[in-house]
Amino acid sequence: MSPAIQNTLDIEAELQVKYHVAITRDVFSPDNPLLLETVDRSASSAKQLVILDAALSAFLLDRVKAYFAAHDVAVEVIEVDSGEVNKNLDTCLAIVDALERSGARRQSNPPIAIGGNVLIDVAGFSASIYRRGIPWVRVPTTLLGMIDGSVSAKTAVNHQGNRNRLGTFHPAMRTVVDTGLLASLPRRHLVNGCGEILKMAMIKDSRLFSLLEEHGPDLVASHFRTEPAEEVVTRAIDGMQSELRQNLWEKDLRRIVDYGHTFSPPIEMAVVPELLHGEAVAIDCLFTALLSYVRGWLGGTDVQRVARTMHRVGLPLDHPLFYDIDMLERAMEEARLHRDGSLNLPVVQEIGSCTFTQEVTRDELHQVTALLKAVAQSAGEDLPALALQH
Amino acid sequence: MSPAIQNTLDIEAELQVKYHVAITRDVFSPDNPLLLETVDRSASSAKQLVILDAALSAFLLDRVKAYFAAHDVAVEVIEVDSGEVNKNLDTCLAIVDALERSGARRQSNPPIAIGGNVLIDVAGFSASIYRRGIPWVRVPTTLLGMIDGSVSAKTAVNHQGNRNRLGTFHPAMRTVVDTGLLASLPRRHLVNGCGEILKMAMIKDSRLFSLLEEHGPDLVASHFRTEPAEEVVTRAIDGMQSELRQNLWEKDLRRIVDYGHTFSPPIEMAVVPELLHGEAVAIDCLFTALLSYVRGWLGGTDVQRVARTMHRVGLPLDHPLFYDIDMLERAMEEARLHRDGSLNLPVVQEIGSCTFTQEVTRDELHQVTALLKAVAQSAGEDLPALALQH
Repeated sequence: MSPAIQNTLDIEAELQVKYHVAITRDVFSPDNPLLLETVDRSASSAKQLVILDAALSAFLLDRVKAYFAAHDVAVEVIEVDSGEVNKNLDTCLAIVDALERSGARRQSNPPIAIGGNVLIDVAGFSASIYRRGIPWVRVPTTLLGMIDGSVSAKTAVNHQGNRNRLGTFHPAMRTVVDTGLLASLPRRHLVNGCGEILKMAMIKDSRLFSLLEEHGPDLVASHFRTEPAEEVVTRAIDGMQSELRQNLWEKDLRRIVDYGHTFSPPIEMAVVPELLHGEAVAIDCLFTALLSYVRGWLGGTDVQRVARTMHRVGLPLDHPLFYDIDMLERAMEEARLHRDGSLNLPVVQEIGSCTFTQEVTRDELHQVTALLKAVAQSAGEDLPALALQH
Repeated sequence: MSPAIQNTLDIEAELQVKYHVAITRDVFSPDNPLLLETVDRSASSAKQLVILDAALSAFLLDRVKAYFAAHDVAVEVIEVDSGEVNKNLDTCLAIVDALERSGARRQSNPPIAIGGNVLIDVAGFSASIYRRGIPWVRVPTTLLGMIDGSVSAKTAVNHQGNRNRLGTFHPAMRTVVDTGLLASLPRRHLVNGCGEILKMAMIKDSRLFSLLEEHGPDLVASHFRTEPAEEVVTRAIDGMQSELRQNLWEKDLRRIVDYGHTFSPPIEMAVVPELLHGEAVAIDCLFTALLSYVRGWLGGTDVQRVARTMHRVGLPLDHPLFYDIDMLERAMEEARLHRDGSLNLPVVQEIGSCTFTQEVTRDELHQVTALLKAVAQSAGEDLPALALQH
């Protein structure tokens, strides 16, 4: 110890976090207990706060009110506009003010967030900073939210044009997944969710990939009411939890679940609301698969399976900004900052397993964009042989 | 399991937190390694961000710059106005934008916050939400910050007139305490820090109380450069860490360190900047001691020791709002919300030990305010006998 240091106090502490995801049917049927169980039934004067995606008001407001009315629970519903453009601090503060009005106590009155990923990310962020963190409950209503958000501890808002620049790790105490809610989800949002299913399948679950490849179009057409919807949703959620459980706070910045999330974030933000999150992720998945192909890792057949599956499901295969080499390099620079100096780019070597790479050259970016153009223009049918690229 | 529930996934995870507090001399002397050790010396292009209390600019800016210049570390200094009125989201966002400009990576470039408690609370909150939490370092420059803030994991901003309504638990990876920085601290701020020392002494450290009683005025006069300054500071910090270590995230809402923090928060906020935090806390400590006296728990001699020590050190004994019964009841109502429905009011039974009470009647508040008036008007010399109150 240096002579200048007189005394040092080392402090160690441990936070135990427990939460759960319930997959259910008819979450708003009065005899479904899942939401009621989180409500404080004591003599508290607090109202149960429900944070509802305004886009779902016509579809869900009456059902939500009826659910709580059936149990004599006084509710306050705040409707919040979703969409990436509203994923900001102003929306967060509107929720904070609603929490204040509801008279919520610090531990016993978890607000319930019902909506898409944007609403849930902002509601979770609000809960995480109100009184230094209160418990919360979420009901994702989009496929993306069910797949990608139900296990995650992440909360966030965008800031200054940067996606999720402000946020916390604060998992919902309970997440209720009811795929019946997908009945009214617009087709494009079903397709959007398939983008994150594709990602999970490519990095760690070849069976899931085959299911998506074979049944994806039917699942989208049926709003996930036909087989194998349950298996697909469950596998995707389970894949996520097995990755997150050991690394919930992202102390390890080599994360295979970052697949599809290196080039896409600034592109998605630059064109809001043109590309949905799962669409941008899917294009990034294909782009990175082509990088793997260029390096001689991923076989051409597998690249074509990816591209054809995306096309058949209805996912876009490209976007003009994925041909902008400067944009792609800026995206990698930003990813390096977020991954503490290392690119840690997940690259799929075969469908269902992946590794990391730390460098992508400008020349490789040019090769990949040339391939992407051919693949996209042919709807996944034409993949130029590698010999042509070298 | 209800028939409606198809599947449940339980997730458990554990966050390990390690941080430390170093008590040192001459923190900004170039041969003191404590701040340098936290700086990334690799080839990163990031600048070391220093968040400096603007009130200290004349006193510290050149020393801070010289410290880093001596080690060839490029710094970006952002000066932030402190004072309770600036403890808000706008200040937080100014810090976030400075982090963005500095090119800080997610784990390797902890910003260093130098200043009073307000600056440190806001800087910590900013670090806790930037990229979902980056490490940070703090150098408290006030006695209050050294005593009350150096072990704490709390970060916060005020919101809508409510003290610390938004915040997180995100301890600094390193806190450097250099009591030499107190040389230039205005006398009132030295007194202010004595308010939190008084609290810690009353709830759990009778030896610390005796030290403050005997040496408090001299310590204030010497800016904590005379004996037993080191023992006082060390005991106060150590008392705090022994309370916080087991309950860092405040899962247990029966906290003796909340002593002095039940009636004071809304009063402090209502009159910003009239009462400093430690002043408001100290009045609350005396107020609650009188409640204990009314209940026949704390002896009159001990109440007088408290009041006389406060007076001799220079702490106020009362404030008009501590006579406002409606305000006191509102404060208890707010404390109940924050403590999840229970008042959990710490009450000192003898100097150095305390218990909790769950109710305070309006009649008791009247008795206490009558006693407070007599005690304050006599500078702690006159404490009416209890018989007169009943």
